[in-house]
Amino acid sequence: MNIKELIKLSLEEDLKTGDITTEYLKLGPKEALAFIVAKEVGILAGLDVVQQVFNFKDPNVHIVSYKKDGDKVAPGDEIIKVSGTAENILKSERVALNFLQRLSGIATLTNRMADLISPYGVKLLDTRKTTPLFRELEKYAVKVGGGYNHRFGLYDMVMLKDNHIEAVGSITEAVKRVKQHNLNYKIEVEVKDLQELMEALKCSVDRVLLDNMSIDELYKAVDTINQDREKSGFKVEAEISGGVNLENIEAYAQTGVDFISTGAITHSAKSLDISLLFREI
Amino acid sequence: MNIKELIKLSLEEDLKTGDITTEYLKLGPKEALAFIVAKEVGILAGLDVVQQVFNFKDPNVHIVSYKKDGDKVAPGDEIIKVSGTAENILKSERVALNFLQRLSGIATLTNRMADLISPYGVKLLDTRKTTPLFRELEKYAVKVGGGYNHRFGLYDMVMLKDNHIEAVGSITEAVKRVKQHNLNYKIEVEVKDLQELMEALKCSVDRVLLDNMSIDELYKAVDTINQDREKSGFKVEAEISGGVNLENIEAYAQTGVDFISTGAITHSAKSLDISLLFREI
Amino acid sequence: MNIKELIKLSLEEDLKTGDITTEYLKLGPKEALAFIVAKEVGILAGLDVVQQVFNFKDPNVHIVSYKKDGDKVAPGDEIIKVSGTAENILKSERVALNFLQRLSGIATLTNRMADLISPYGVKLLDTRKTTPLFRELEKYAVKVGGGYNHRFGLYDMVMLKDNHIEAVGSITEAVKRVKQHNLNYKIEVEVKDLQELMEALKCSVDRVLLDNMSIDELYKAVDTINQDREKSGFKVEAEISGGVNLENIEAYAQTGVDFISTGAITHSAKSLDISLLFREI
Amino acid sequence: MNIKELIKLSLEEDLKTGDITTEYLKLGPKEALAFIVAKEVGILAGLDVVQQVFNFKDPNVHIVSYKKDGDKVAPGDEIIKVSGTAENILKSERVALNFLQRLSGIATLTNRMADLISPYGVKLLDTRKTTPLFRELEKYAVKVGGGYNHRFGLYDMVMLKDNHIEAVGSITEAVKRVKQHNLNYKIEVEVKDLQELMEALKCSVDRVLLDNMSIDELYKAVDTINQDREKSGFKVEAEISGGVNLENIEAYAQTGVDFISTGAITHSAKSLDISLLFREI
Amino acid sequence: MNIKELIKLSLEEDLKTGDITTEYLKLGPKEALAFIVAKEVGILAGLDVVQQVFNFKDPNVHIVSYKKDGDKVAPGDEIIKVSGTAENILKSERVALNFLQRLSGIATLTNRMADLISPYGVKLLDTRKTTPLFRELEKYAVKVGGGYNHRFGLYDMVMLKDNHIEAVGSITEAVKRVKQHNLNYKIEVEVKDLQELMEALKCSVDRVLLDNMSIDELYKAVDTINQDREKSGFKVEAEISGGVNLENIEAYAQTGVDFISTGAITHSAKSLDISLLFREI
Amino acid sequence: MNIKELIKLSLEEDLKTGDITTEYLKLGPKEALAFIVAKEVGILAGLDVVQQVFNFKDPNVHIVSYKKDGDKVAPGDEIIKVSGTAENILKSERVALNFLQRLSGIATLTNRMADLISPYGVKLLDTRKTTPLFRELEKYAVKVGGGYNHRFGLYDMVMLKDNHIEAVGSITEAVKRVKQHNLNYKIEVEVKDLQELMEALKCSVDRVLLDNMSIDELYKAVDTINQDREKSGFKVEAEISGGVNLENIEAYAQTGVDFISTGAITHSAKSLDISLLFREI
Repeated sequence: MNIKELIKLSLEEDLKTGDITTEYLKLGPKEALAFIVAKEVGILAGLDVVQQVFNFKDPNVHIVSYKKDGDKVAPGDEIIKVSGTAENILKSERVALNFLQRLSGIATLTNRMADLISPYGVKLLDTRKTTPLFRELEKYAVKVGGGYNHRFGLYDMVMLKDNHIEAVGSITEAVKRVKQHNLNYKIEVEVKDLQELMEALKCSVDRVLLDNMSIDELYKAVDTINQDREKSGFKVEAEISGGVNLENIEAYAQTGVDFISTGAITHSAKSLDISLLFREI
Repeated sequence: MNIKELIKLSLEEDLKTGDITTEYLKLGPKEALAFIVAKEVGILAGLDVVQQVFNFKDPNVHIVSYKKDGDKVAPGDEIIKVSGTAENILKSERVALNFLQRLSGIATLTNRMADLISPYGVKLLDTRKTTPLFRELEKYAVKVGGGYNHRFGLYDMVMLKDNHIEAVGSITEAVKRVKQHNLNYKIEVEVKDLQELMEALKCSVDRVLLDNMSIDELYKAVDTINQDREKSGFKVEAEISGGVNLENIEAYAQTGVDFISTGAITHSAKSLDISLLFREI
Repeated sequence: MNIKELIKLSLEEDLKTGDITTEYLKLGPKEALAFIVAKEVGILAGLDVVQQVFNFKDPNVHIVSYKKDGDKVAPGDEIIKVSGTAENILKSERVALNFLQRLSGIATLTNRMADLISPYGVKLLDTRKTTPLFRELEKYAVKVGGGYNHRFGLYDMVMLKDNHIEAVGSITEAVKRVKQHNLNYKIEVEVKDLQELMEALKCSVDRVLLDNMSIDELYKAVDTINQDREKSGFKVEAEISGGVNLENIEAYAQTGVDFISTGAITHSAKSLDISLLFREI
Repeated sequence: MNIKELIKLSLEEDLKTGDITTEYLKLGPKEALAFIVAKEVGILAGLDVVQQVFNFKDPNVHIVSYKKDGDKVAPGDEIIKVSGTAENILKSERVALNFLQRLSGIATLTNRMADLISPYGVKLLDTRKTTPLFRELEKYAVKVGGGYNHRFGLYDMVMLKDNHIEAVGSITEAVKRVKQHNLNYKIEVEVKDLQELMEALKCSVDRVLLDNMSIDELYKAVDTINQDREKSGFKVEAEISGGVNLENIEAYAQTGVDFISTGAITHSAKSLDISLLFREI
Repeated sequence: MNIKELIKLSLEEDLKTGDITTEYLKLGPKEALAFIVAKEVGILAGLDVVQQVFNFKDPNVHIVSYKKDGDKVAPGDEIIKVSGTAENILKSERVALNFLQRLSGIATLTNRMADLISPYGVKLLDTRKTTPLFRELEKYAVKVGGGYNHRFGLYDMVMLKDNHIEAVGSITEAVKRVKQHNLNYKIEVEVKDLQELMEALKCSVDRVLLDNMSIDELYKAVDTINQDREKSGFKVEAEISGGVNLENIEAYAQTGVDFISTGAITHSAKSLDISLLFREI
Repeated sequence: MNIKELIKLSLEEDLKTGDITTEYLKLGPKEALAFIVAKEVGILAGLDVVQQVFNFKDPNVHIVSYKKDGDKVAPGDEIIKVSGTAENILKSERVALNFLQRLSGIATLTNRMADLISPYGVKLLDTRKTTPLFRELEKYAVKVGGGYNHRFGLYDMVMLKDNHIEAVGSITEAVKRVKQHNLNYKIEVEVKDLQELMEALKCSVDRVLLDNMSIDELYKAVDTINQDREKSGFKVEAEISGGVNLENIEAYAQTGVDFISTGAITHSAKSLDISLLFREI
């Protein structure tokens, strides 16, 4: 489903048989001027979606953005000026804000975590733990916040997790099977200890996911990977996942891995507080 | 969009051109046994959606629920047993968990807030600040958590907010216009001070929304409403909204209102930590 | 289904694999001038649909309306001038007339009945006995003819009919159940005699439907309602339904009720005779 | 649009966001027994649609038909027995009856007219003056009532009407053009007087439509056609159209034509009075 | 499915989750100039589809056609000039060429066969042996190449083949049954020898299909048909089918039939070699 | 579009408003037994599609396959036995054969070419030159015939062709840009001479496409690639494309490349001659 359809269905969800309040008021073509205003500190994402929501049924609603995606806002900052008939602004307001608040919430949390690890040259990755149907938008918000996108779904990278490995017996067997059929995609393997890491390295995979390891183990894992790099000349990428939060992410970053991935930036970000105020009506 | 379509599109989003990892592994009809397990304390919601996700493409995936929506879980509690081909479990796992974690997160937060105010006979209401396309599911999770549902959209209740009132000049005029055309729906009016409250009471509306008032003002507002009730014999309902959180909600409840509504339970609930583990494969 | 889709499907129904007659004639871009003309006395409804039908595939068909919805016409009156390619006029003609004749037929019959009762301050209501998929249009034609709209479907008003009451045991029980869950909608109860009427009044419902009562009973029912109004200060609305026709409707109106509803205005109105004539081609 | 989709959309139209009355009553799995009963004399059509409507969402609603399409009913006759949950019967009742009443109304009126002309060996034809989206069903009801179907749309027969002829100059030119491109379809030509009739006969068309002629002219037209038949050996069919009603149709039939077509049987038939009664609940 | 939808789905098939090559190159708004050039001799068909493909997502891609459908091209001939962003040209190129090459291949082969038989006044007909979903386009290419269209599907002509005849017992019985119900369509009957031919002629059908007969038999069949024509005054059309190819088609044409039909022109035509070359980028 | 939808639309294309021949014959539930029989030598592909076509509207049509995809057939070989009502077999016959003949034609041509090069260890690859909407099916037929699948669309491999390279200036620049954004996909580069080949090898790509080179150049190219392999330890794959046909493909295979790709196997394969014969009816 593309964004236009998502917006269409979202407006239908809120309106169904009609905005009865506005209809009973018989506002007619009365024009209004409204402002979308930040009510807390954060990073904006989704301004284009806001415009698309307001213009979905009424191209005459006029949108002026004072900010762009990625900008930092503080309480009281004006983000967007909306002008058009009061009726059409009122019908789209809630849906527009629901998108903007959620995406800005994700960008804000991502930004906070990414800032903590970028000094160490480590990249923050998202996961597939996104809201169903919002993956594209939420992964966009992650990029806006300074994060990077891991695979978009089950279709664009080979990722061998513990269950896959168990299903065929060993990392070696799993990688062998994949290489037999796969001509196009890179391969990542999840490992839970140093022994599995060494097996994965022997199989010449493209990336290893160091899952739920302690800081100590991670230092050893990075050592092992570096030694392998010297030997083979090929750079296997290292990714950490599991148990990462704002408190401990910097310590993880110091271990020397390439990536830290976390589902929290998409599934547990709070909405950014933003509201629409009418100035003239 | 109904839930079946939502599930269909969510699976498509994750799978698109196929689960390449599983396909390259050529697992064939290999059966697996997996358990969905809680990893933190919370209230479950969405177990039926989990079943629908797993059975969407494969009715032979067998689901046994050890819990039901509304049950409290602790880390390690087994929630659902899933058996079927490893391939089909792996293809649906992430989508199923994305639904379950989000809805359970909402039920959990709702439950925490509702528990604080129910001793005072006050009901916790949700808002329209829901994830687009998830309103029905999220409002369901609110009920599971012990909350109540406010209107589902712009279509099932007349709600006159500040912008509507400003658009026609006064509460009196707004209510008059609505009553002229509306034969079926109840009417709620947002008021920001005692003067507006008294105007709304004169208009014989069904509910007042006391918006962003201080605790002191709220006590006075409740007094005013009670006096009106004695006079007219008609019970106007009172709802509070704005600035409510886990710390202050009990104090709001003590003022004697009927409802407290908050967007946080849907837009800022953290996902409940839940995962799927393979036991045999 | 919205009107645009209804028109799309209606044209498809008539055209399917093409208008073979016109296509074989190879008329090319030949222009024509045509008039839609009344052939009997009646009230027009649906002129906008006519325009939409003609413009659905060809925005260059030019429509000039000499009349507007609600206007009375006599045989020979020109209603609409249509100009455009002969081919496109011929392809849309029948579908456009099918809409216009049906809706005008409804407006005409409604108008005749409404005129008989409006002197008594009684409003003519429609029912849900409409042509499937045409409810919105047919209810619109009722308003054009001077009638009023009852609920649009099962979704916008609570209406307790005999079967509902029987299902739960009594009017009192039925109303009690509804009030327990319903926060938004008004409640109407069907009653078939004075005893049921009194029970309904005790339950504080919003409207009573006096079903299939004799004129005598209706006078008594209105008395009962008036006495209740004096006592409670709350105005319960009274609606008559069943067995109403052009001959007896005035007598029903004289009983002092608020509304008379009848399915005949939608399900048994004759199409108004209207045709399209080419003047130049 | 096929009938299944028509039913789906019709139920959606009536239900939209839900049958609030029934839902608030919380009837649960309570079973009911209901009867669809005739309230006036007429011919039934559409019994299969009734079954499809009731079973659309609930295959467990059980339908027993005591009658079949084409049967004559009198007031009080039981037509169908419906058993299932009260909730599901109540949700489908109105839509099912709306179909059945309309189609039976058409079959009834058709039957009355067809009976008047069949003794003369004349067939009653319908037209394209049907309710948009109901053409297939309404033409089916015509057959049930003893009529015959004219073309289903613009796509399955070549029909040269006055406007087509005017557009190319003459009947001769119109038929010539059609024969140049048309390899598959039969050709009917509308004629308004004897001169046009003779021109049409010379062009070797398959059927002539004698439009709005007086009885006298029709006798002469039939004579002309008979003479042509003797000469060419080819039987041109004769169809009458325009101004036909229950009073005069027999006189038209006596002229010796093959077909009489009339739009009234579809566009101006009254619904047959039929209702659903609960017996046990 | 109309052509616009066919194009939409075809582009989706090639692009699915995106043109990763072009996207990774970040070409931005860079403009390019490209030419579609013939690489072998043939007849063009489908130039309009090419335009529609390029403009489907980007109306700013500018197309200038140097040729029109039906034109003959030689290697090196420039057919179309395409200008627009390099990115959008690259995304549509393959789909556009896939249509153009296939349709031009059909037009080319049709043209070669039609040229061989037109001197004898015989028309080349296509069949229903077309690529599923491409029937309209492929039949269009046949006309471009100088052929004629047989029926478009099972819906626009009555065609009694051997299996139909076997199913009801005889040609006579089959034609009798059809004539009983069919008021609109012409009738063609397949015959495999002179005896069947004579039976078909007695039934007054519109066309006979002489299936898989030898040249000798065909001469006799044509004789028989001519004699029948003299007797009845009605011209039955004669069509040959089966085993026709470039080598023998002229001999078939000399027998004096009206039509030769062959599936090869649609199902076994080679794509015409055409490619798109960038000149400036 | 999945195969089920493709079949649905294909049947609609052929049937549209109905199979009038069969309908007019009123065959009723008459059963028939039919055989699908080969009429020339070839390799079968698409037997499962045949089954799906026949069972699409009528699950009671019974299919027994005597052959499986990949089997070689000779004239007269029975492929499939079809039993069911004559009516339903006749309605699906043409569509089923259109799929089977096309796919078997592709498998047959692929098989002929693949057999010529497999002794040299070279794999035959298809291209994106497939019939729009048939890519999945046609690529499946290629595999059945012994070929291998190149990328399925623009979405599953990075392929830098001459136009891409021209657009950014050089192979080096193009590969650099891709590597900057692409984390998941393999990279192939088209080269037209040895100089470009060497540049591509320096960039460490995964595969080179040697486009339209002479046999002499190809031998040199393979040498160059082999030298690079010895130096870097990494095996770059080599693919030939352009100007390949049944006559010269063996010579190309002898050069020592890994893959030969050709569009002819999909866009210019002749349909395999196959027909359906009724045995009993």
